[in-house]
Amino acid sequence: MGTDWLMATIAYLGVGAAAVSGVVEARRHEMDIVGAVAVALITALGGGTIRDLLLGRTPVFWIVEEAYAILALVVAVFTFYSTRLLTLTSRSILIPDALGLGMFSILGAGFGLQSGTSLFIASLMGVITGVFGGILRDVLCNQIPVVFARSTTLYATCSLAGSWVYILLIYYHISGPVASIIGIAVVVTIRLIAVRYNLRLPDPA
Amino acid sequence: MGTDWLMATIAYLGVGAAAVSGVVEARRHEMDIVGAVAVALITALGGGTIRDLLLGRTPVFWIVEEAYAILALVVAVFTFYSTRLLTLTSRSILIPDALGLGMFSILGAGFGLQSGTSLFIASLMGVITGVFGGILRDVLCNQIPVVFARSTTLYATCSLAGSWVYILLIYYHISGPVASIIGIAVVVTIRLIAVRYNLRLPDPA
Amino acid sequence: MGTDWLMATIAYLGVGAAAVSGVVEARRHEMDIVGAVAVALITALGGGTIRDLLLGRTPVFWIVEEAYAILALVVAVFTFYSTRLLTLTSRSILIPDALGLGMFSILGAGFGLQSGTSLFIASLMGVITGVFGGILRDVLCNQIPVVFARSTTLYATCSLAGSWVYILLIYYHISGPVASIIGIAVVVTIRLIAVRYNLRLPDPA
Repeated sequence: MGTDWLMATIAYLGVGAAAVSGVVEARRHEMDIVGAVAVALITALGGGTIRDLLLGRTPVFWIVEEAYAILALVVAVFTFYSTRLLTLTSRSILIPDALGLGMFSILGAGFGLQSGTSLFIASLMGVITGVFGGILRDVLCNQIPVVFARSTTLYATCSLAGSWVYILLIYYHISGPVASIIGIAVVVTIRLIAVRYNLRLPDPA
Repeated sequence: MGTDWLMATIAYLGVGAAAVSGVVEARRHEMDIVGAVAVALITALGGGTIRDLLLGRTPVFWIVEEAYAILALVVAVFTFYSTRLLTLTSRSILIPDALGLGMFSILGAGFGLQSGTSLFIASLMGVITGVFGGILRDVLCNQIPVVFARSTTLYATCSLAGSWVYILLIYYHISGPVASIIGIAVVVTIRLIAVRYNLRLPDPA
Repeated sequence: MGTDWLMATIAYLGVGAAAVSGVVEARRHEMDIVGAVAVALITALGGGTIRDLLLGRTPVFWIVEEAYAILALVVAVFTFYSTRLLTLTSRSILIPDALGLGMFSILGAGFGLQSGTSLFIASLMGVITGVFGGILRDVLCNQIPVVFARSTTLYATCSLAGSWVYILLIYYHISGPVASIIGIAVVVTIRLIAVRYNLRLPDPA
């Protein structure tokens, strides 16, 4: 065991942060509790769901391990009815969100490798798992995905970098837990630097 | 047999009602017959399709039983070219729509149970099957899903209640047809009461 | 072999044209390179992905044959950073796009037949493979799918016609390569005539 509880904690933090971000968007768009819970669940579970579908890993992960769905549901209901929780979000979910982005990315890349995909496809699985929940959230809220906007600080890029670091470490026979922790650290570090210094991708000419 | 034809009739009514609602939205958004048929098919078959994908039941149901797709297609074409059909819809599809919501919900919950999911996940499958067609319809029409809006009378809630009633009846060994009819009746009853008395979910503080 | 390289060339042209159209939309909506690449990949691979998921052919095609994903990625990056490529697109992708529509349609119909679906469902698989990438592109760009709009010249219709021609030729034991070439030719011919003479579907009364 050893790192197992750490990995589980990070995954749950990520699911919780994603659920909160779903509720925040849902409330901004005048949704009721049904909308908020639905958007929260889809934000929290959507990336991993798309990954599982593409790889053919069905039933998808949250049907097999329902703790993720239950956690997202509980967090969504609490956040929806608690104005205090809502007001402290934007800042306070930055770190859990970055941890979640890191965790989901290396999980996605890992499942890709396990399924025997190429390294390139495994890195795509990492990014898809990391960012697709937020894309689905924005589509349901009828807005262009934030992660695609020019004004957005590095996000998918962090996921891609961390996925590749993880994949290369595994490829060179570094143990899973070590590779995971380094991969997540890369994602979180780049993400926090990007937010602090407002780093974006270069515009086209 | 006995209740088989009744179940089939309810399922077809639900598919037809969903197809009509798809065409109505498609016409409101200036779509042509291609758009109307596509939106109608996705509204009618979308919820069950998502359920089948999540559970890994592929090919999805309407590929195996093409009667559903053909029915939705025929209803869509007729509705699109018949102004008379279109004007009498909003009111007149309330009951077929409620029956469909009930049927899809208990079918979804039942397939969940059959696949060995927990009761909680089975209830989610019921709601997903019941409401996701309408969500996809609204996403394709570039609007926030109606079922998520604060101004919407109870809809997903009816689906959830009926799914749970059905699941608990099956859990306590009530026969499938009886549990189905009671589950559908619960959905339809709550839905009609909600529309009659304009019942909504409570707003957050 | 013989026609194999021809088929592969057409498929790659179609993927490239779809990727370009994804980048064009992404830039119109102020997206950065992440958005452009994501939209390009989804436009190019989305139709076949949906088809594979519905039929239960997983992992989906671009995980197995990563050349498609790599091509779409490379085309997307080049197009995004090359203003010259972008300005000559709208006209110049008409023919590659029509070829791609034809190729994807007969591929989709063919996979349907291989999976043992009815002819009707196989024709739907053709159309889904042909047009769903563009639908997902437009949903991600927060606009009603162009292919559904009344003002759009025949597009899904070309795909449907070509799919049926292909299906019937296969049904009457014409060899695969011949049926494919005729099916693609039907799609391209109708598409070019539709654009030239601004042909649309009839409006409702």
